[in-house]
Amino acid sequence: MNPSTAARELPRTSSASRARTMMAVVKASAGPGAEIREVPVPTCGPGELLLRVLRAGVCGTDLHIVEWDRWSQGRIKPPVTLGHEFVGEVVERGAGVDRFAIGDRVSCESHIVCGTCLSCRSGNAHVCENTRILGVDVNGGFAQYVAVPAANAWRAPANVSIETAAVMEPLGNAVHTAFSGPLSGCNIGVTGCGPIGLFAIGVARAAGAARVIASDVSPYRLELARSMKADAVVDVSRESLVDRVREVTLGSGLDGVLEMSGNPQAVRDGLAALRNGGRLSMLGLPKEPFDLDWNRLVIFKGITIHGIIGRRMYETWVQMDHLLASGRLDIRAAITHVMPMEKFHDAIALLRGGNAGKVVLVPWGLEGGGGA
Amino acid sequence: MNPSTAARELPRTSSASRARTMMAVVKASAGPGAEIREVPVPTCGPGELLLRVLRAGVCGTDLHIVEWDRWSQGRIKPPVTLGHEFVGEVVERGAGVDRFAIGDRVSCESHIVCGTCLSCRSGNAHVCENTRILGVDVNGGFAQYVAVPAANAWRAPANVSIETAAVMEPLGNAVHTAFSGPLSGCNIGVTGCGPIGLFAIGVARAAGAARVIASDVSPYRLELARSMKADAVVDVSRESLVDRVREVTLGSGLDGVLEMSGNPQAVRDGLAALRNGGRLSMLGLPKEPFDLDWNRLVIFKGITIHGIIGRRMYETWVQMDHLLASGRLDIRAAITHVMPMEKFHDAIALLRGGNAGKVVLVPWGLEGGGGA
Amino acid sequence: MNPSTAARELPRTSSASRARTMMAVVKASAGPGAEIREVPVPTCGPGELLLRVLRAGVCGTDLHIVEWDRWSQGRIKPPVTLGHEFVGEVVERGAGVDRFAIGDRVSCESHIVCGTCLSCRSGNAHVCENTRILGVDVNGGFAQYVAVPAANAWRAPANVSIETAAVMEPLGNAVHTAFSGPLSGCNIGVTGCGPIGLFAIGVARAAGAARVIASDVSPYRLELARSMKADAVVDVSRESLVDRVREVTLGSGLDGVLEMSGNPQAVRDGLAALRNGGRLSMLGLPKEPFDLDWNRLVIFKGITIHGIIGRRMYETWVQMDHLLASGRLDIRAAITHVMPMEKFHDAIALLRGGNAGKVVLVPWGLEGGGGA
Amino acid sequence: MNPSTAARELPRTSSASRARTMMAVVKASAGPGAEIREVPVPTCGPGELLLRVLRAGVCGTDLHIVEWDRWSQGRIKPPVTLGHEFVGEVVERGAGVDRFAIGDRVSCESHIVCGTCLSCRSGNAHVCENTRILGVDVNGGFAQYVAVPAANAWRAPANVSIETAAVMEPLGNAVHTAFSGPLSGCNIGVTGCGPIGLFAIGVARAAGAARVIASDVSPYRLELARSMKADAVVDVSRESLVDRVREVTLGSGLDGVLEMSGNPQAVRDGLAALRNGGRLSMLGLPKEPFDLDWNRLVIFKGITIHGIIGRRMYETWVQMDHLLASGRLDIRAAITHVMPMEKFHDAIALLRGGNAGKVVLVPWGLEGGGGA
Repeated sequence: MNPSTAARELPRTSSASRARTMMAVVKASAGPGAEIREVPVPTCGPGELLLRVLRAGVCGTDLHIVEWDRWSQGRIKPPVTLGHEFVGEVVERGAGVDRFAIGDRVSCESHIVCGTCLSCRSGNAHVCENTRILGVDVNGGFAQYVAVPAANAWRAPANVSIETAAVMEPLGNAVHTAFSGPLSGCNIGVTGCGPIGLFAIGVARAAGAARVIASDVSPYRLELARSMKADAVVDVSRESLVDRVREVTLGSGLDGVLEMSGNPQAVRDGLAALRNGGRLSMLGLPKEPFDLDWNRLVIFKGITIHGIIGRRMYETWVQMDHLLASGRLDIRAAITHVMPMEKFHDAIALLRGGNAGKVVLVPWGLEGGGGA
Repeated sequence: MNPSTAARELPRTSSASRARTMMAVVKASAGPGAEIREVPVPTCGPGELLLRVLRAGVCGTDLHIVEWDRWSQGRIKPPVTLGHEFVGEVVERGAGVDRFAIGDRVSCESHIVCGTCLSCRSGNAHVCENTRILGVDVNGGFAQYVAVPAANAWRAPANVSIETAAVMEPLGNAVHTAFSGPLSGCNIGVTGCGPIGLFAIGVARAAGAARVIASDVSPYRLELARSMKADAVVDVSRESLVDRVREVTLGSGLDGVLEMSGNPQAVRDGLAALRNGGRLSMLGLPKEPFDLDWNRLVIFKGITIHGIIGRRMYETWVQMDHLLASGRLDIRAAITHVMPMEKFHDAIALLRGGNAGKVVLVPWGLEGGGGA
Repeated sequence: MNPSTAARELPRTSSASRARTMMAVVKASAGPGAEIREVPVPTCGPGELLLRVLRAGVCGTDLHIVEWDRWSQGRIKPPVTLGHEFVGEVVERGAGVDRFAIGDRVSCESHIVCGTCLSCRSGNAHVCENTRILGVDVNGGFAQYVAVPAANAWRAPANVSIETAAVMEPLGNAVHTAFSGPLSGCNIGVTGCGPIGLFAIGVARAAGAARVIASDVSPYRLELARSMKADAVVDVSRESLVDRVREVTLGSGLDGVLEMSGNPQAVRDGLAALRNGGRLSMLGLPKEPFDLDWNRLVIFKGITIHGIIGRRMYETWVQMDHLLASGRLDIRAAITHVMPMEKFHDAIALLRGGNAGKVVLVPWGLEGGGGA
Repeated sequence: MNPSTAARELPRTSSASRARTMMAVVKASAGPGAEIREVPVPTCGPGELLLRVLRAGVCGTDLHIVEWDRWSQGRIKPPVTLGHEFVGEVVERGAGVDRFAIGDRVSCESHIVCGTCLSCRSGNAHVCENTRILGVDVNGGFAQYVAVPAANAWRAPANVSIETAAVMEPLGNAVHTAFSGPLSGCNIGVTGCGPIGLFAIGVARAAGAARVIASDVSPYRLELARSMKADAVVDVSRESLVDRVREVTLGSGLDGVLEMSGNPQAVRDGLAALRNGGRLSMLGLPKEPFDLDWNRLVIFKGITIHGIIGRRMYETWVQMDHLLASGRLDIRAAITHVMPMEKFHDAIALLRGGNAGKVVLVPWGLEGGGGA
């Protein structure tokens, strides 16, 4: 099923008619797996919004949680409703919330921050020392309803498809990574063409990169990179990134690399393909520590490396909103699957298989969401 | 005559066949006017290149010099060959020059700087305290040949038209102004749609602005602004810039203004249309001092104002080269007239009349350059 | 009376013993003047702190409000308790406040911001479009008690005097102005040696300026500038700022000017004393619009002008805290008077006379605060 | 012997009296060692200065060259006169040099750059792709005379000692590293207290750091760090850097780390001691590739890593000049030995032993320089 643009046609739910329970994807216990079950509809506390979820994106992190990897074991406290990428319609406003109206379509920043630590007070709330994440630490959006702090809600641009609105959180990762260094008139490499890498190709182009060169080892993902209008795509299982970059940039090299794979060789190749004085911004999470030839790849070249996490709160959202609302950025080609939330486990299987861009889920009770 | 793209078809001149004299547009004496006359072909000193001029752009400054305004009276020491925007073909290399080849097509930075003052040593060579300008302080490019320091030469991207290559100097003004603050994902206003304003529209779009809003009072120039793909054009003789900006930006206001007019009201309107925290970059030269309501327009809004002169040497050229060589930036719609250099006075009249974008001249002896 | 450092010796007030009313300095009606009167002790709402005021600073803005100038007429809605610079002891915590303890000494950011406008969401909360100011729009700190949002409270560094803690708000103006451009190793001018200018001298020195050159026309204030350890002080009624700067900087000129006077000639002199490429940061509010020779002072020199308002929330507070807590910054020489709050009108007279640095008030009931 | 301040008392050499040969420290052949021998006095080409060397600093790189390590084997083409840190007196000016006078005392940038590559044209000449280094690729300053491009010469501030002037090149490394991120009001760590680390302590303090915390494993070097006025020194063989940083910074952590050791554990400790969002600037050269836990130390914390090489040409020199000429920066405590150049091999032994800060050599024929 293709993404629809008919976001405004969905029926609205009156508060009175809401049920007391709802369907949700829940991490129910400490171990592999996740359950689809009936749970209470969340209550809407002071400063919160209750959203009827319209669409939700599936992330690699969800896969890790289902597989119960080491990170999940240390972080997740079941039971918790999963889902940290979603768009919803405001159906109730908690005490003190006046800047949203019932019926507003809002996307959400997933990081709930303390506002008072040194990071928060230094304009770096995205690295708040006390962050709680929706769908990880508190109940998230793989459900019919979700309660979120109004401070985390962002009114989705009116012109974008509902599927695009659903994935503004990971799109924000791509924007944050791209905007962490110069873009205008720059030659930009994107190493790793998973969903966020694909988004980053679109962002770099919309944000004024002179050339965008994408690399991966999967023909499927490289084809998606082409659909996102990369100027060149490089299959690093068969070609040298450095050589192709030299050719495409007429010898200049890359001004910046957006590292989306977490792959050690991709990091090394990206550094090697940078011009002296360039920057590499790392969003991809390596599976384990890895080494670099610091002298050759970083110090002698005067390189800057940025560790990137989350999205700037909320500079990134402003930038993303402008790019989307003006029509400069269109990420629909990277959203390859839209399926009922009921089929969550199929979506996870798709991710595991690697032949998917971004997968978006439709909750129970909505057209395309399956039965409820 | 339209700009041609057939730059590579021009015949090359062998050193042996060069005449001892050439035709040139010369500011011959201290007073209004300029003369077309025969002068010696320049010699090519150590570190210099001798160029056969292929095309040259006419600038408002040339108009001022012909009219012999106050600035010209204080600056120009006749006789001097005019012309500070041009592209030429290398026909001779002075001692010590090895990075250009005979036949290379090069555009030129017009500022010859000392390299040793505090500005030059601080990465601000464009505000060198000892600048000499080609076509102003030393003989320039309104001639069949011109000698330039090799350090000032820039190999023109192979894919651009020869007319585009001729105006990289003023295009660099537009790039420098635009790049003096954030562009990616920004709402950018351009106040004043003369040639550099028109270039700036193209630059801001290519460099990733979310929206570009151009303003002027001339229907002719606003039409050119549309051709350069401004997202909105505002005739400020009939509409409020602030109101149109609010509408087009969905209430956000402008993140940046590129001020190209030197008009006091344009500066005030631009400041008023900025969002809090925005920036205004001033390239346009006001005719005389003018006042601002600093509190309301600058201080309470937390605005940054950048005074802009010249082009960064040579960061701006790198940025411009990337935008042109990648095909992201196309300024041909702003080049409205190409005429023989012989008709220099007609070109000046065109500028005076205001119904012209950039005017480009073809020297004697070239196709389209008239007789010699 | 000299500032005391014995901040920790003050007695604490138990919640039970608090009276229902208190003494305060109140702007009671729309017209010149201010009244000392008995008013109710504020209640402490959700998210708020109730502070027993320990010291409060008097600002030029308070003078304007008493004199009922045009700005006050448009902004102030009497009755309102004045005072936007103060330090207090936490005596009560509203619902949901857990990061302060009873007895904490806190200074306060005076701007209460919305958190949701474009400025707030772009990291520019200090230019929030919906700002309300303590002591201007809502009841302030010229009183025995004040209620403030916990988000605006800043635990004062333990090592600073209570008078220093009282004036962190205006000190933050100085820090914000100074930090709006490069400081380390820079030659910095401070034009205008009122309290914030004096603070700025100390800040620029502590923050690594190579040389700090202060200018004013008042011998009294220039003497205070010397006490704050300016490297040179210039009486611009008798000397040329440009000439003295050239001499003191060995010909380099100023890298930055912190403009604290609002005086048009000071702005022009400051711009003239800047090296090419320098910056001028304007905090001083001009009384009315004034003109500049933009070409000569701003554009040809490639100058950047920053309009400065408030303090960055809360980057400026972090920077200020580090400078104070490390002992690098000591502003006590700029605090020239400490007097009972009862004598508010004497304090205002001192400001009007011009022979005062920062004046600090001691509320009723505290040692040095007069009878109650 | 202590550094002298009597720089201006040295006798001047007339051109006529100069001998045809001089003494020098020469890397004579491909293998371990270096020779003191008589060689011709260099000629002074166009654009060059001939300097009588007054003092020269010994660098760890000189040790590597003597030991003939792998890097030296790949880089050095014997014979070459060593020495890339020195101050000299101008005794002859080549053609076209007019901004220095005979008798000027000049320090030298050691990187001779091409001026035309992308790095040079992008304001990053310090990472020029065609750099040649004095004393490495071309004859250097361990000699009685040296010829240098006038563009590389920097008139030493009149107030500094001749030994300080001799080591502006490595001091510039420290300035460049420190200035590659925020300093004013910041908590700065310096990992590694060799000569450049010691300089960096002084630079960070002079440039406005709130606190400077130095770490090493050598009691000798930590004592020198104390002499350079580090606020705290940490012997990481016995204490945890993270713990001490937490204590000294009152829990804030470091805003920046200046990494001067090349030691993998120092890099990891430095990253761990950074606050979220901090920066680590790496000047120290690791002996071999090493690994990091990127997720924990870089990505989740939003860290920026800067690879640092050389000095910015010539922004760093301007900054260094301001810090020295204003008297803010005094590095004399880090210069522990001054000895005759004749005793070069003793100096190398001192470096190898580790119980030395910066070692400065006095050429033959000067007071303190031994016989000639």
